[in-house]
Amino acid sequence: MYPESLEDLIESFKLLPGIGEKTAERLAFYILNMDVEKSNFLAESVVNAKRNLHKCPVCSNITDKEKCNVCSDLKRDSNVLCIVEDSRSIYLFERTGSFHGFYHVLDNLISPLDGVNPEDIGIEKLVKRIEKSSFSEIIIAVKPTIEGETTSLYIKKILEGLNIKVTRIASGIPLGADIEYIDSLTLERALLDRKEIE
Amino acid sequence: MYPESLEDLIESFKLLPGIGEKTAERLAFYILNMDVEKSNFLAESVVNAKRNLHKCPVCSNITDKEKCNVCSDLKRDSNVLCIVEDSRSIYLFERTGSFHGFYHVLDNLISPLDGVNPEDIGIEKLVKRIEKSSFSEIIIAVKPTIEGETTSLYIKKILEGLNIKVTRIASGIPLGADIEYIDSLTLERALLDRKEIE
Repeated sequence: MYPESLEDLIESFKLLPGIGEKTAERLAFYILNMDVEKSNFLAESVVNAKRNLHKCPVCSNITDKEKCNVCSDLKRDSNVLCIVEDSRSIYLFERTGSFHGFYHVLDNLISPLDGVNPEDIGIEKLVKRIEKSSFSEIIIAVKPTIEGETTSLYIKKILEGLNIKVTRIASGIPLGADIEYIDSLTLERALLDRKEIE
Repeated sequence: MYPESLEDLIESFKLLPGIGEKTAERLAFYILNMDVEKSNFLAESVVNAKRNLHKCPVCSNITDKEKCNVCSDLKRDSNVLCIVEDSRSIYLFERTGSFHGFYHVLDNLISPLDGVNPEDIGIEKLVKRIEKSSFSEIIIAVKPTIEGETTSLYIKKILEGLNIKVTRIASGIPLGADIEYIDSLTLERALLDRKEIE
């Protein structure tokens, strides 16, 4: 019904997550009224991102260089490795400014129901890297869901023989949150993981 | 902080309406994991839409041809013209299958607070078209807001001397809606515009 170029534009927006028919139509019409410089910037950014960005061969972080910014930073603490589930996590932890070790991005979290088995998380690359390095602590920083917990336990087990401390980031009540809005599993964990006040 | 190509991609998504920092990041990372054919389809669709689509010289509908589908359809009823606020409205009315006349898309609805004055709605093009045609009825089908009502009254006044019936689409309670959720202005209008049951 719409002209073909408009249909194509709507269809292409519908490929993106969380964008349905109505939103795709709205975005498409917005593009039509946009400055052509801006719409070209969008189109070129999509093409350039796919062309220039790839996974860091060391840690699998997204990068446009041979090695990612973190892996090529010689000032970082080579004793600690933080395992995360995606590149976005790296930027979120970097924003806190409180971690100075290296990172490693998993390919996936284990989720047998979605067909993601232990061999699909990129464990070989991780183990090879750890064996060649001198990390004294591995911090597992994946989300505290069933998938995240399963993945943590699996990694802990795989690294058992290497005599390295394996920790995971704390779960509990977010700072500033109201206890009445926290689910009972989180409250239970917060109780179990209580710390002595020093 | 992100590699430049990724920052650009995030910034370009933020140009779109309703897309903030978080959503833009999510979409950008999604693009990175997408098949390159699909991401190219998105980029090309944006470029092609801007290149191929333009306003129909007769009615201002979006089209990729010299004249739009409706204007070049000789079987349509040349007695009735329906004035709408944008091209999307045309497709919505066409989907109902119950209108067979022609359309005319306004440039804007009058809204002095937003700097849109009567001279900015494209009234000259509309009047010239009506003077050259043989319409016996003009249906105004813009949204029933202050801007829409102001625009309707203005068009009605401009067309006064031409001896053409000017109507507007009905406002009232949407079919299937619960009266308790309808605002009082709509209820008032529904009462005022009541029709005898035949």
